[in-house]
Amino acid sequence: MTEAQSTRRARGGGAARRAERSAVSVETAKYIERNIPNLEFLNEEALQIIEENAETVLEEIGVNFVECPEALEIWREAGAEIDGERVRIPRGLCRELIKTAPSHYTQHARNPARNVVIGGKSLVLAPVYGPPFVRDAEGGRRYATIDDFKKFVKLGYMSKWLHHSGGTVCEPTDVPVNKRHLDMLHAHMTLSDKPYMGSVTEPSRAQDSIEMSEILFGKEFVADNAVMTSLININSPLTFDPIMVGALDVYARAGQGCIISPFIVGGAMAPVSVMGTLTQVLAEVLAGIAYSQLLRKGAPVIFGCFVTSIDMNSGAPTFGTPEASQILYGAGQLARRLNLPFRSGGGLCGSKLPDAQAAYETAHTHNAALLGGVNFMLHACGWLEGGLVSSFEKFVMDADQLGVLHHIAKGVDISENGQGMDAIREVGPGGHYLGCAHTQANFKDAFWRSNLLDYRPFETWDEDGAKDTQALASERVARLLADYQQPVLDPAISEALDAYVATKKESMPDAFY
Amino acid sequence: MTEAQSTRRARGGGAARRAERSAVSVETAKYIERNIPNLEFLNEEALQIIEENAETVLEEIGVNFVECPEALEIWREAGAEIDGERVRIPRGLCRELIKTAPSHYTQHARNPARNVVIGGKSLVLAPVYGPPFVRDAEGGRRYATIDDFKKFVKLGYMSKWLHHSGGTVCEPTDVPVNKRHLDMLHAHMTLSDKPYMGSVTEPSRAQDSIEMSEILFGKEFVADNAVMTSLININSPLTFDPIMVGALDVYARAGQGCIISPFIVGGAMAPVSVMGTLTQVLAEVLAGIAYSQLLRKGAPVIFGCFVTSIDMNSGAPTFGTPEASQILYGAGQLARRLNLPFRSGGGLCGSKLPDAQAAYETAHTHNAALLGGVNFMLHACGWLEGGLVSSFEKFVMDADQLGVLHHIAKGVDISENGQGMDAIREVGPGGHYLGCAHTQANFKDAFWRSNLLDYRPFETWDEDGAKDTQALASERVARLLADYQQPVLDPAISEALDAYVATKKESMPDAFY
Repeated sequence: MTEAQSTRRARGGGAARRAERSAVSVETAKYIERNIPNLEFLNEEALQIIEENAETVLEEIGVNFVECPEALEIWREAGAEIDGERVRIPRGLCRELIKTAPSHYTQHARNPARNVVIGGKSLVLAPVYGPPFVRDAEGGRRYATIDDFKKFVKLGYMSKWLHHSGGTVCEPTDVPVNKRHLDMLHAHMTLSDKPYMGSVTEPSRAQDSIEMSEILFGKEFVADNAVMTSLININSPLTFDPIMVGALDVYARAGQGCIISPFIVGGAMAPVSVMGTLTQVLAEVLAGIAYSQLLRKGAPVIFGCFVTSIDMNSGAPTFGTPEASQILYGAGQLARRLNLPFRSGGGLCGSKLPDAQAAYETAHTHNAALLGGVNFMLHACGWLEGGLVSSFEKFVMDADQLGVLHHIAKGVDISENGQGMDAIREVGPGGHYLGCAHTQANFKDAFWRSNLLDYRPFETWDEDGAKDTQALASERVARLLADYQQPVLDPAISEALDAYVATKKESMPDAFY
Repeated sequence: MTEAQSTRRARGGGAARRAERSAVSVETAKYIERNIPNLEFLNEEALQIIEENAETVLEEIGVNFVECPEALEIWREAGAEIDGERVRIPRGLCRELIKTAPSHYTQHARNPARNVVIGGKSLVLAPVYGPPFVRDAEGGRRYATIDDFKKFVKLGYMSKWLHHSGGTVCEPTDVPVNKRHLDMLHAHMTLSDKPYMGSVTEPSRAQDSIEMSEILFGKEFVADNAVMTSLININSPLTFDPIMVGALDVYARAGQGCIISPFIVGGAMAPVSVMGTLTQVLAEVLAGIAYSQLLRKGAPVIFGCFVTSIDMNSGAPTFGTPEASQILYGAGQLARRLNLPFRSGGGLCGSKLPDAQAAYETAHTHNAALLGGVNFMLHACGWLEGGLVSSFEKFVMDADQLGVLHHIAKGVDISENGQGMDAIREVGPGGHYLGCAHTQANFKDAFWRSNLLDYRPFETWDEDGAKDTQALASERVARLLADYQQPVLDPAISEALDAYVATKKESMPDAFY
């Protein structure tokens, strides 16, 4: 235990113990530690071509740091060639610089039982991020509010297979743009005890995120530990904008985790080919992560890759497509070759409803993310309509499905008990295993069981209203929200957070753009 | 070209040419030839344990061949120890016997463009098999009829990504049990030109299947080539029954393809553990395939594995579960180590409706089958409610999804064009790729596009009735059936098939059990 940790424990003593007791009522599975191999989709030749080409892109084409004079100066000192806002980076320089980035890091939660390790064989699951709309079966599609936001945080807190509270689970459009981050962080900090993400929409809001975290965790603790993982999107192709660079600057210097992530609609923001897209992704991530290490050596960062394809008929982005899976697999390999944590995937879909389309597309992405070595899965649950909508029903549907990923990742028990030879001997040809000793001893943990999907016989299900998955999910949403109990938080911390938010809000006029 | 082939061509000349012309109107993708690696899920230690334990099962426990005196005699001569109906097989004997089984074989279709290769890196997709019920949105759930059966054959014929017409796409319950196979085979042979499966419900029906195939392909051609792949289920645990052994006898001696497949609800018909189940699967398949080679060396056979888990709360079988995926991956590895074609998976689900549950579960199985090296995927589309129901909507939904598997399996183009460096140079930082030369040259084939799912913006979709996937699928079913055109068949063959069915039906009284 570090000194900061012991300080924190001393500070939060009684509250922390109460929180731990309270937490028992809401079971959260530990983040996934894969006991299975990754799918090594691309061969060595393809990977080497991409790595070579990415260096060529960095050296000959370069990347733009737009309206970032400080960043240009930092790059110049590091040895890059600066031409206006263009940064051309000599072959191998980024690779050299990123060596200080950690292969994994711990993101702390206020409930230490909820800490997550990001990197290596781990997989941390976080909910949908960013939609301006919400949808549920009863109210249809509508602009999201802070009340919706709080409901999603509560659902996330109560979701067994979800390790992370996320960030902008929906955009609270009824709160002024320049004050939303305060209410959002306040909700994550007080309504959940899982780890959360910081604001990235202005450098000052990143700073506010750190200050609020200092109230929650203690100033020294935040100085020494990552308590946030925040999303820095690259403006593909090959462009870094001042907002995201500014937020990265705040977080990296504070030693807080960042995902450095191209956000690409393939065919529009990257070449219309898998190899071309991966080349651009790698060049962008290399530049972004190298820059993070120039800000602070050892700053925890994640190799991000959010790529979807485009419907060339309509121009609409499409999700859960084969090309997106291929790119995810390839990007995971590139990240592992750099010894960096990897972020991609999630429960992505283009469907307007939580129907079969949504589920097919989501399951494709979930599976690819599991087998592609993703360490941090944003949008793991709740994403609908290409990220325009946070769906209440889909949140609990996907959150249930995340149990599938946990159980595949456990791998296979090869012990004598796992081999079950005694059972085969006991039962023999023509018998059945339901009553045998091995089954009795093992059945409880043998098979994953959904808490949502319907396994009843047709007749029972039919008499009970013949409900589809969306209807079952609506009921589950209502039940979870009715059962929700706020995790205990030291009243002094709670009051300090309230006061911080109130003071900040008073200090500036409302802005709605 | 063999002599039989040239005979056949001579016989069917004009009709064959007409069939080939007609076939142009219905596009069918070639069977999948994987250009991607398989997921090697289990490690060497686990695989060796399973192989050792399976030999122990065969030697010490053995398998039952129930009411199969001829099989017992064949086994005795081969060196097994016979004790009543129990067959104990010395270590290594099965492995030695199966060496004559081919690693892959061609199943011929009456339209040679539809021939499929089963084994190696191939993946052949065949529709749902066996349900006594059908469901559609309009008529709900009801007993299947021969009229339903014909509709499914037509849908299969018109499905681009489906390579195989299948077998019992639903049970035509309005036809006497002892005559169904005649009508089913007649439908596959006349309403489609894709490859099909033979009857296995009585040895005499297997013989009828061969005789009808001889009418369709010519007697010599059938003698020299596999024109059917039929499903021989093992009565797990470790039991072979006379019906299936009898059908295998007919097909193997005729050189026709057979899937030797345990059908296992895990926890009931095999140990409640992955390793234990795989051990039993391997023992059963080794015995079944070794027996097929005792009947005829070189008979084409497939290592089958149909395993699902059980809901220990209700006893209901469950589908698309993590344990089923693990078993599929492991069984694929075991089959490859024996150099045998592999069958597993398909669009399995337990849902009562073609809703999100159905799609999640189906997509899990589809993905595992693709990455687990499946060569023959039965139930690839249309399976609902644990195999009790063939769903019209789910048939076209799943059939559309099979395009995803084709496109993932294509792998990645690493050519200069695939690398897209010219595009990255042309567009540069901050530009967009929609209009660049590389995009214009490549966009048509770059991304898979669903023919069913909705990619339109919310407003357009909403104004058009806000249809979910099931509603879109209902429309597609109606459109496909309206557009269906029967593939041309030599009238002489068609009449001969009609006459065969009529004569056979007259030769026996109706039986309904």
